[in-house]
Amino acid sequence: MSRAVSNLQIDSARLWDTIHETAQFGATPKGGVRRLTLGPEDKQVRDWFRKACEAAGLEVHVDALGSMFGLRKGRDMSKAPVGLGSHLDTQPTGGKFDGVLGTLAALEVVRTLNDAGIETETPICIVNWTNEEGSRFAPAMMASAAYVGDFTTDDILSRRDAEGVTVGEALDGISYRGATPVGTQKFSSFVELHIEQGPILEAEAKTIGVVDSGQGVLWYDGKIVGFESHAGSTPMPLRRDALATLAEIVLAMESIAKKHGPNAVGTIGEAVIAAPSRNVIPGEIAFTVDCRSADAGIMDALDKDLRAAIAGIAARRRVEVTLDLVWRKPPTHFNPKLVDAVETAAEALGYSHRRITSGAGHDACNLNTRIPAAMVFVPCKDGVSHNELEDATQADCTAGANVLMHTVLALAGVAS
Amino acid sequence: MSRAVSNLQIDSARLWDTIHETAQFGATPKGGVRRLTLGPEDKQVRDWFRKACEAAGLEVHVDALGSMFGLRKGRDMSKAPVGLGSHLDTQPTGGKFDGVLGTLAALEVVRTLNDAGIETETPICIVNWTNEEGSRFAPAMMASAAYVGDFTTDDILSRRDAEGVTVGEALDGISYRGATPVGTQKFSSFVELHIEQGPILEAEAKTIGVVDSGQGVLWYDGKIVGFESHAGSTPMPLRRDALATLAEIVLAMESIAKKHGPNAVGTIGEAVIAAPSRNVIPGEIAFTVDCRSADAGIMDALDKDLRAAIAGIAARRRVEVTLDLVWRKPPTHFNPKLVDAVETAAEALGYSHRRITSGAGHDACNLNTRIPAAMVFVPCKDGVSHNELEDATQADCTAGANVLMHTVLALAGVAS
Repeated sequence: MSRAVSNLQIDSARLWDTIHETAQFGATPKGGVRRLTLGPEDKQVRDWFRKACEAAGLEVHVDALGSMFGLRKGRDMSKAPVGLGSHLDTQPTGGKFDGVLGTLAALEVVRTLNDAGIETETPICIVNWTNEEGSRFAPAMMASAAYVGDFTTDDILSRRDAEGVTVGEALDGISYRGATPVGTQKFSSFVELHIEQGPILEAEAKTIGVVDSGQGVLWYDGKIVGFESHAGSTPMPLRRDALATLAEIVLAMESIAKKHGPNAVGTIGEAVIAAPSRNVIPGEIAFTVDCRSADAGIMDALDKDLRAAIAGIAARRRVEVTLDLVWRKPPTHFNPKLVDAVETAAEALGYSHRRITSGAGHDACNLNTRIPAAMVFVPCKDGVSHNELEDATQADCTAGANVLMHTVLALAGVAS
Repeated sequence: MSRAVSNLQIDSARLWDTIHETAQFGATPKGGVRRLTLGPEDKQVRDWFRKACEAAGLEVHVDALGSMFGLRKGRDMSKAPVGLGSHLDTQPTGGKFDGVLGTLAALEVVRTLNDAGIETETPICIVNWTNEEGSRFAPAMMASAAYVGDFTTDDILSRRDAEGVTVGEALDGISYRGATPVGTQKFSSFVELHIEQGPILEAEAKTIGVVDSGQGVLWYDGKIVGFESHAGSTPMPLRRDALATLAEIVLAMESIAKKHGPNAVGTIGEAVIAAPSRNVIPGEIAFTVDCRSADAGIMDALDKDLRAAIAGIAARRRVEVTLDLVWRKPPTHFNPKLVDAVETAAEALGYSHRRITSGAGHDACNLNTRIPAAMVFVPCKDGVSHNELEDATQADCTAGANVLMHTVLALAGVAS
């Protein structure tokens, strides 16, 4: 690689501007972003992204699940491109960086290569995956999961949000049901830049996380059926209180995750009382559970311990509790050759770095089950994500984009 | 009192028929009733009740808060009438008897007196109080509270439901904002028949509960502000989880109520996570608390213990918790002369009976702060109320209505 290429840096100000420009689509008063997948704000950012890709000379196509691909030609078009990107949807009260950084850094890599007049040996292809977050439609990362064949396209198209709208209807609603069958766009490898969404890099003052693994995930839907009764006239010992039952389950989940820590987490993120009233003992509650570990053995232990705890609580409180596993994603072990490539790029650019496990799931974890994949992390303020206060520095975002670019250049090769 | 009057019994089948006829207004698939105050089903039952009152020869008038009054003339119209009645609104998933029994039994008393050609010395007046339940508009029993002057009419008219609709708008929506100023209809005394809504009478096989007291009530609105963060990448020790905080508060409330039992209960009936998502640690939760005791000293202790427990939990979990007292109703001690009258009637009719404390609040508790009031309880199945499965036997309902009638006759006197 020539000295000019090895010294190549992305345009930091341009990247930063695009992050803040797109943050307007779904901007919240507290400085975050609410851009639920396939909603009107998602359409706005998609239209922006398509236009930016086309302006950068990319061939844009959209697949049947709305994932967007922007292809930059390489010298040898017989080779599958190196993929890079992330997602542009957000949590209901999300931040400006989760997913956005990786997608816009991919665009910035293309712009930088264009400006420098660099042709790669193999093509490269930047991607915006549909519904990474999973907060409108379950499961999360559904488009990349369908891409690798974990679900059929029809299955995903029929999934419904809380209002009963299907993925297919939502795609049509914003005109993003594309013509390309899912999986048609091949990749030789895939690299995703993302904020860490955890506190480790910041705490250790490292600029780059070389992600070598990702936590496995267990998602459950739970339901508690106790007995609705009058809050004033039902003596405490006779109650079958669904909320008190949930309270014990929440605290059991917390202590089980701590017991298996530090490589385990467990969260109850949703809990809805049926027909709530301030003077009625809750009779029925629906809830969700999210358990994670990078160790498959710990995942099994979390499942077993949670089920045992719930059985004990339910029996003691004379209530029924059901717990259905709705998603199980094994831990990810990223492709060693690509992990090394990320590390080499970070080292060559002079950034401090460490190997790290991803606490969150990412589209790159799905892709890694079929093609070599890797990830680059940069720190985020206080480890906070899925929150309007999510923040990251321009310097760290720039460093991450540079590592992304040089990893991609190493994988794609520079045409001589 | 003549032998014919002392042997007088209400028409059991007619009472039972009216209970089941009106249960159609808001009937639920599970056999309960959903008739939220001032909603379309409440209008249906109000129209039915007005027509039935008029057919029974009563002068019907409606006050500015929608409470309905049906006056039956007495010999001496210079005297204030004896009041009897209850309410026709229900919980979101309520039963066929709560409130309905007392209101329709009052109608049945009038019909029975009409059939027997009995004139009372003082007039009697049957009542359907607006919004006893409090599940659409807070506080519960707002109309009887305004009647005794605890709130101004304008204050109550401006209260809003969860959709932002005011009481005044809801009254206009069903054309039940009446012309009579609140408090205009005077009573010399008031008697309310109700199902127990608790398990004591059934457990002790008593037909009649002679209610001598009622629990005081504390209602709170609470809010927890923790920190929303990613469920996968936020290590357990760094979390500020609003739901785990609520879990501890729920269990603390339970153990505090048990500690002060058996004359204390505590319930968290509503809890809503702001912007819930299955992979986000809950950051903010709004909740309600309902605490009760028939002992004012225990009420103070419940308040003190709950606040102390919450302060400890909040500090340990590094979250903010606010707890606002929105309603405090002191315990009720019903008028001894009226309580004796209920007991005398039950004894004379040959029903098994016992003195009892009301676990629930009732309009009669409000009225007792200004005029002599008392209540008659009958058993309900398994002590269950505020539930679609709420049930009571025809024999017990009949017995309760007979005790109500003979109590009213003793208070109103029979014209010679």
